[in-house]
Amino acid sequence: MSLFRPAIDRTAAYVPGEQPQESGWVKLNTNENPYPPSPRVADAIAAATSRLNIYPDPLGTSFRKAAAGLFGLDADWILPANGSDENLTILLRAFIDPGDVVLSPYPSYILYETLAGLQDGRYERLVLNPDWSWDFDAIAARVANAKLVFVPNPNSPSGNRWSDEDLLKLLPPHGILVVDEAYGDFCDQPHRMELLHRPEGKRIVVTRTLSKSYSLAGLRLGFAVAHPELIAGMRKIKESYNCDGLALAGGEAAILDQAWMLENRRKVLATRARLTSRLREAGFHVVDSQANFVWATHPAGGHKAIYESLKSNRVLVRYMRFPGALAGKTGDESIVDGLRITVGTDPQVDRFLEVLASRSA
Amino acid sequence: MSLFRPAIDRTAAYVPGEQPQESGWVKLNTNENPYPPSPRVADAIAAATSRLNIYPDPLGTSFRKAAAGLFGLDADWILPANGSDENLTILLRAFIDPGDVVLSPYPSYILYETLAGLQDGRYERLVLNPDWSWDFDAIAARVANAKLVFVPNPNSPSGNRWSDEDLLKLLPPHGILVVDEAYGDFCDQPHRMELLHRPEGKRIVVTRTLSKSYSLAGLRLGFAVAHPELIAGMRKIKESYNCDGLALAGGEAAILDQAWMLENRRKVLATRARLTSRLREAGFHVVDSQANFVWATHPAGGHKAIYESLKSNRVLVRYMRFPGALAGKTGDESIVDGLRITVGTDPQVDRFLEVLASRSA
Repeated sequence: MSLFRPAIDRTAAYVPGEQPQESGWVKLNTNENPYPPSPRVADAIAAATSRLNIYPDPLGTSFRKAAAGLFGLDADWILPANGSDENLTILLRAFIDPGDVVLSPYPSYILYETLAGLQDGRYERLVLNPDWSWDFDAIAARVANAKLVFVPNPNSPSGNRWSDEDLLKLLPPHGILVVDEAYGDFCDQPHRMELLHRPEGKRIVVTRTLSKSYSLAGLRLGFAVAHPELIAGMRKIKESYNCDGLALAGGEAAILDQAWMLENRRKVLATRARLTSRLREAGFHVVDSQANFVWATHPAGGHKAIYESLKSNRVLVRYMRFPGALAGKTGDESIVDGLRITVGTDPQVDRFLEVLASRSA
Repeated sequence: MSLFRPAIDRTAAYVPGEQPQESGWVKLNTNENPYPPSPRVADAIAAATSRLNIYPDPLGTSFRKAAAGLFGLDADWILPANGSDENLTILLRAFIDPGDVVLSPYPSYILYETLAGLQDGRYERLVLNPDWSWDFDAIAARVANAKLVFVPNPNSPSGNRWSDEDLLKLLPPHGILVVDEAYGDFCDQPHRMELLHRPEGKRIVVTRTLSKSYSLAGLRLGFAVAHPELIAGMRKIKESYNCDGLALAGGEAAILDQAWMLENRRKVLATRARLTSRLREAGFHVVDSQANFVWATHPAGGHKAIYESLKSNRVLVRYMRFPGALAGKTGDESIVDGLRITVGTDPQVDRFLEVLASRSA
């Protein structure tokens, strides 16, 4: 007999993208930034390494001030976490009692469903229209009853971005809207957290990560931005020392070097445009992306075989398959699948296109 | 109206020990190791800093092999975590549904009560005898009904260590015993996880940290040791990338340099003996400690005033106060309080003793 909670036995573990630890791969599968972080990060980490025998600042105040400064806010609007994933878990544990309703769009980031299951929440998918827009008539009643709605914006795997007007329609009247902006820095027009300053803003949490735009996936550092009352409640749940001294120091240095991040962003956006054009020339349908990846589908299908053929040439992209993603269809007819391709360096993208072309030749 | 779960509104945030971030303090309040980590740690961190743009190994396999090797186990007996605190949280989330019974000794580490509250568990204290032994007759029925029993061994704040025979009496017949060995490396006779190899061992989890003996409080790295079936269930709950690439690399280097850790341990144990003798000469009662701190009480009381007087001289120790700690007593008569003093370097301990002596002069 299992001693684990039924919710744990019921929940399948979330499977992250493949992470080969050996070199030699063109790795376009987990939306990492192909460029190194600011050199100031390594300096800050080296300096902090001399203080490893003592505990870090439990509140990460110096980091919070730097992150808050990005949006003209005070430090008490910021909750640093051990990767944005920790903030997502904290939000579930803050607001969801057994049976409370948790919603997120579909197809989208599937971790929300796993996290809701671990917390015994009642998770439901909000199936998107085939063009990645919302079917508000179909979902309004469920949003009205929800405790927590997660919306990645830009969305993954599609890369599209929804408007503030759309987001406000997804805010439950007696619950919290979480806007997961892991890819927010790659938008053509980054915002300044205007949504949080509206009256409804007291029920909105924005999550950010340093993994993508700041090239720090290996450091595990994210932060939530929300009204100080929400941050204070969330803080009760975090581990006392949830962010280590190296991450806090390195993350602060990265944020303070905006010029470095923006130059990497500029390169990613240029390559994104080129990758999108070349894929379209090759007959793929590609969503206009506001993130550091593109979602490509081919009218002829065969996406899994393309993924496998790329992998056998040591080019990793993400094959994703979403059963039940087309409203009104059932079984195989309801499946949406495709390839999510991270925007790498130009040579990485060239290698990807070369293998892709050799396959269809 | 609060949108937070009632359990969150009810729970007071855990308050960690004071962490002044400026220098100039003799800091003997949070059981940090006063000696630096192995120089191999800084080398490993510097090497890993060049790979920060990619995600770390989600399972931390190389680190797990090093940790498992300490006890002659396979890597699947090990779960690395973002500090031992994360493993404690994972255990609560793995085993406790609302109303399930969580027990821990008292006086002891009070974080368990906070974590149980966040998970809506029914937390109860197992009040220890005044000599820090167990009143097994008084607690047997509660242990029989428990889902999770946390036992820090050595205990904090007392520093005493309980025998395997005692621990087996604390193992609930339909639940899990967690032996929190944050201070295990400071015992005179460290063990080799013999308990886990008994038939009952499939219901026992041992947690370890690199914060204390390996001088890495700032790195946030701990690990659980348990039967692979338990580890597999716990793994579902951890964040996908719960340990960052620098912590995994630095932690592995620290574990592989046992000679460095053991030399620091030798110095701590020698200073612990000297600190214990000097405090006893000054009229304090001091428990024989198996950890890197001592618990000192004076027959005349006044512990809080002593703490404050030390603090005004920039010497930080931990004043701790446990109401309800004496069975059969009520109100003020039930309070146990005293000073928990971390074993620092010899000069730090000399400074502490000097300020203490000047006070009573």
